[in-house]
Amino acid sequence: MITGRLSCDVLLYKMVSSVNTGIFFLLVQLMICSSRNLHATINPTIGAPWPMPQKYTPTGNVYQIEPSSFRFEATGETCDILTSAFARYKQIIFGTTLKFQPDHGADNGNALAIASVKVKSECDKFPSLESDESYDLVVSASGITINANEVWGALRGLETFSQIIVRRSLQYFINGTTVTDFPRFQHRGMLIDTSRHFLSVDVIKEHIEAMAQNKFNVLHWHIVDDPSFPYTSAAFPEMSEKGSYPGAGHIYTASNVLDIIGFARMRGIRVIPEFDTPGHTQSWGKGIPDLLTKCYSKGVFDGSYGPVDPSKNTTYTFLETFFGDVANTFPDQYIHLGGDEVSFGCWQSNPDITTFMSKMSFGTSYSKLEQYYMQSLLNIIGKKLNKGYLIWQEVIDNGAMVQPDTVVEVWKGGYEEELAKVTKLGYKTLLSSCWYLNYISYGDDWRKYYACDPQQFNGTDAQKKLIIGGETCMWGEFVDNTNLIARFWPRAAAVGERLWSDMSVKNTAEAAPRLEEHRCRMVSRGFAAEPVNGPGYCPEEYTKF
Amino acid sequence: MITGRLSCDVLLYKMVSSVNTGIFFLLVQLMICSSRNLHATINPTIGAPWPMPQKYTPTGNVYQIEPSSFRFEATGETCDILTSAFARYKQIIFGTTLKFQPDHGADNGNALAIASVKVKSECDKFPSLESDESYDLVVSASGITINANEVWGALRGLETFSQIIVRRSLQYFINGTTVTDFPRFQHRGMLIDTSRHFLSVDVIKEHIEAMAQNKFNVLHWHIVDDPSFPYTSAAFPEMSEKGSYPGAGHIYTASNVLDIIGFARMRGIRVIPEFDTPGHTQSWGKGIPDLLTKCYSKGVFDGSYGPVDPSKNTTYTFLETFFGDVANTFPDQYIHLGGDEVSFGCWQSNPDITTFMSKMSFGTSYSKLEQYYMQSLLNIIGKKLNKGYLIWQEVIDNGAMVQPDTVVEVWKGGYEEELAKVTKLGYKTLLSSCWYLNYISYGDDWRKYYACDPQQFNGTDAQKKLIIGGETCMWGEFVDNTNLIARFWPRAAAVGERLWSDMSVKNTAEAAPRLEEHRCRMVSRGFAAEPVNGPGYCPEEYTKF
Repeated sequence: MITGRLSCDVLLYKMVSSVNTGIFFLLVQLMICSSRNLHATINPTIGAPWPMPQKYTPTGNVYQIEPSSFRFEATGETCDILTSAFARYKQIIFGTTLKFQPDHGADNGNALAIASVKVKSECDKFPSLESDESYDLVVSASGITINANEVWGALRGLETFSQIIVRRSLQYFINGTTVTDFPRFQHRGMLIDTSRHFLSVDVIKEHIEAMAQNKFNVLHWHIVDDPSFPYTSAAFPEMSEKGSYPGAGHIYTASNVLDIIGFARMRGIRVIPEFDTPGHTQSWGKGIPDLLTKCYSKGVFDGSYGPVDPSKNTTYTFLETFFGDVANTFPDQYIHLGGDEVSFGCWQSNPDITTFMSKMSFGTSYSKLEQYYMQSLLNIIGKKLNKGYLIWQEVIDNGAMVQPDTVVEVWKGGYEEELAKVTKLGYKTLLSSCWYLNYISYGDDWRKYYACDPQQFNGTDAQKKLIIGGETCMWGEFVDNTNLIARFWPRAAAVGERLWSDMSVKNTAEAAPRLEEHRCRMVSRGFAAEPVNGPGYCPEEYTKF
Repeated sequence: MITGRLSCDVLLYKMVSSVNTGIFFLLVQLMICSSRNLHATINPTIGAPWPMPQKYTPTGNVYQIEPSSFRFEATGETCDILTSAFARYKQIIFGTTLKFQPDHGADNGNALAIASVKVKSECDKFPSLESDESYDLVVSASGITINANEVWGALRGLETFSQIIVRRSLQYFINGTTVTDFPRFQHRGMLIDTSRHFLSVDVIKEHIEAMAQNKFNVLHWHIVDDPSFPYTSAAFPEMSEKGSYPGAGHIYTASNVLDIIGFARMRGIRVIPEFDTPGHTQSWGKGIPDLLTKCYSKGVFDGSYGPVDPSKNTTYTFLETFFGDVANTFPDQYIHLGGDEVSFGCWQSNPDITTFMSKMSFGTSYSKLEQYYMQSLLNIIGKKLNKGYLIWQEVIDNGAMVQPDTVVEVWKGGYEEELAKVTKLGYKTLLSSCWYLNYISYGDDWRKYYACDPQQFNGTDAQKKLIIGGETCMWGEFVDNTNLIARFWPRAAAVGERLWSDMSVKNTAEAAPRLEEHRCRMVSRGFAAEPVNGPGYCPEEYTKF
C-alpha cells in the first residue's frame, strides 16, 4: 500500500466543502456583474465519482493498477453485454497509454491485477423500467470486486470503478473504497430532438456513451416533429422520402435505428421513441396527404394544414399500421405518444370537423375532440399493440382515460402543482420542466438544474413514490451536430446526480469540485464537455484534432 | 452559359427579404415563450457572400468551374502570401472532391478555367492598421479577375470569390458577378482570452482561419490575466514556469507564438497581444515576487496581493525589459496595454504606497496613482520602445496623457456617451461593449449584435471618422477548446458584416437567409458553426469524425 499518497486531495476537497454556500453564490453574482475581476478557481477533487453513490467510503489506502497485467473477470453470469463492457472499460480507463510498460516492478506487491465482476441473474436481452441497477464495489488489499443482481448493475459499477482510478505520470492509482449503490429513480432520461435539426448516428452514439458515463438510462428520442421526418417507416417509406430535410443523409434507415438501439443496449440504456401527435405533425403530412386537417379561411381550403384529422376513419387505420411498425422496431415496452400543444384554430375552421363534432355531440369543446383522438390512439397502442406509453401532461390535463401503467411527463411551468395532481390520479410521473438545457444562460447554471428536485411538491409518500424520475431535454431549435455534446455536457451531469444519488446529496459547494473533476474526466475521455465553474483548466485539454 | 440555373434561389431570397421585420420579431418572441410550436425555417441564399461587399452585382449568367483544370494566376506582384492563398483557396473551394473528374466535356465551352489575381504593389511583410484591403472582382464570359492595390485586398477578394461558387452534385457553378469592395472599418478585431482557460495552438489557428473567412483582420490576444500566465517571456521565463496553469502544455512557447503570428499573417490578420496591467496581474506575481502590491490588514501583510506596485522603481525597470521582449516578439506596431478595472483597496492598505502618495502629493486620489503608473508605462512603450498602443477606456477616463496615435477601446455600458467623449478628445476609437459574445442568451441573438453600430452616437463627422472599428470579445470564464468555435461562430459573423459592409446593410430580414447559407458554408468547411436561425439543416452537416 502507498498510504496517504492522495491525502492532499482530500484536504482540498474538505476545504472546498467547508465554503459557505451563501458566500459562494455572492461570488457568482459578482462574476455576472463584472466577470473579468473573478479569478477564484474551484479545486477539483481527485478520483471522486459522479454521480455520488448511495454509500461511498474511501479508505486511507492507495493501490496501484498496472495496465499491462490488469484484467476483468466474470465470476457469475455473463453475456455479450458484460464482455463488451470489459473491453470498453479497459479502453476508457487506460486509453491510449495502454501500451505503456511501467518501470516500477518493485511496486508489484501493491498492485491490484484483477477486477472480479459477479452478476447473479442471467442477462436480460434489453434494459427496462424494472431493471435492477444496484451494485456493490469493494477495492481493498484483497482485490477488486463488483457484485450485482443484474448485468445492468454491473455496468453502473464498472463506471464507478473507472472513475475512482486516477492516472498520474502514466501510473494508475485507486483508493481503497467501499461502495453500495443503487439509483434513487428508475427512469433517468435525456431527450434529443432530431426533427428541428438532424443529428448524425455518430453524434447520437457519442451522446449515448456520455449518458452511460453519467448513469442515465433512457434515451427519449423525439425523432420526428413539424420541421422534418427523418424516421424510415417500413410501412410508409414515403414519409421520410418526402418529409425529411432535403439532401443526402437526413434520414435514419432501419439499420441506423437498430444500430443505435444496440449501442444503447450495451450500455444499459433504453431507447424510447416519441412519435408526437396530433400536433407537431406538419412533416407527417408530406408523405400521407390525407392525414392532416385542411385549414379553411372564409370557407375555402387555404392550402395550409393543422393537426392530424381526428374525424376520419382512415386516420386510425393509418395509425395502427404505422405504430405497428414502430412497436416492432423498438424493443422497449414503452412508446412516447406526445400529445402536447395541440392548437384548435385549424380544427375550428374545417367544415368536416364541424360536422363530426356535431355527430359526436362534442358541442364546441375541441378538448373533447382532442381527447377522442388521443383515446383512440391510446387504445391502439395499449390494447392492440400491447405496448405501454408515455405522454406529455396535456393528455391527462384534458381528461383522457389511460392505462394504469402510463407514464406522464410534466414539462410546463408550475410543475409542483402538476406533479401533485398527476400523482394523485395514481400515474407514474416524470419531471422535465426545470431541465430544458436548450434554454441557455450565462454562468454556472448547472446549480439551478442541480437544485430542482422532482419530489419537492405537496403530496403523500405514496404520491412521491409515483415519481419514477425525470428527463433533461435538448430541443433542437439551436442544436445540431456542431454543439449537442458541449451544450448537454457537463451541465446535464447535474441532472444525472439529482436522479441517481440520494436526495440528501444537494450541496452545490460540495458538488462543484467533483463536477470540476468530472468535466475534465469527460474531456480526457474525448467529450467536448465545456467549462462550468469559471476559470480553470483540465490536466488534459480537449482536442478534436 | 447556363442561364437562369440559379434563378429559383433569387426568388427565395426576395421572398424572405420582403418579410416584415416586425412580424419576424413577433415569431421570435413566440419561440421563446413556447419554442416547440415554431417550425418556420429560413430559406438560405445560394452563393451569396458574407459579409456583403460594398457593391455586389450578380448577373443572370451562370458559369461552370472545373476542379481538374481550374487554376489561379498572379498577373501582378506576388509573394508567399499570395501563392499560399492560392493553394488554400483551391482546397477551400473544392475540398476533398478535388480528385473528381467531371464527365461533361461538352460543357467545357462554358467553363471558366483561370482566376487572374493582379496585385499592384509589392507585398508588405505584415498587415497593419494602414493596410489597403480593397479589391475588385469580375466574373464574366471573359474570365475571372481580382484586382487589388495590395496583397491584403487580394486575400479578401479570394474569400469573396470562394463564397460565390456553389457546388451541386459534384459540379461547381458561379454567377456572373461584379464586386467593388473595401472595408467600412480598418480595425475588425476579435478578442480571445487564453488566461481564464487555455486555448491550444490548433484551436487558435482554426479560429484565425474562420476570422479570415469572415474578413476580420485583428486577433486581439488577451494572453495573460489573473488566473494564468501562459506567455513565455524570453527575459523572464519564470513567469510562465510559475504563473501558467499546472500540467503539461499550458504555455505558449516562443515558437508557438511565432507560428500563430505567421499563420495569421498569411491571412492578412494582425496579432495584437494584450498585457493588461496594473490590475488583472495576479499570475504575474508568481514569477516576479516584488511586482505586485502587498495587501495589509490591520497594519500587517495579509498574504494577498493587489495590482502592480506603482511606487517602486524596480517595477519600471521590469516593465521596460518585459515589454522590450514583447515588442520584439510581436511585429505589429501596436500593443494592447489594458488598464481596466483597477481596484484601489490593496493600494490603500499598503504603508509604502501611502508614503509614496504623500511624497508625490497625490493626496488620497488613487486615480492619480493609477494615472502615474499608466503614464510611466505609456512612456516606456511609446518613447523607449517606439510602439503604438491600445488601451481600455479607463485610461482615458482617468485622464492619462497618451500618444496621438493611441487607440482607445470602449467596453463598458453607456458606450454612446463614451464614444462621443473619446472621439471629442481626438483619439482613434474601437467599440466592443455590445459584442461580448461570451454572454450567451437563448435564441437568435445575432440580431442584437447585428443591430449595434459603432457610429451611432451624437458626434460630428470628424468624430465619427475617428471610429476605426470594433472588436467582438470572448472572455474565457466558460470557454476553452471544447466550445470556442461554436460559441464564436456564426454569431460573430454578424459583427463581421457590421464592421466590413456599408452602414446601410442592416436589415436582418435580408441578412438572415445569407447568414443561414454562410453558417452552412462554414460547416461544410469543417467549422462547428452552430445553428442561429431556429430549425433547419445544412446540405453537409458537421462531423468531427
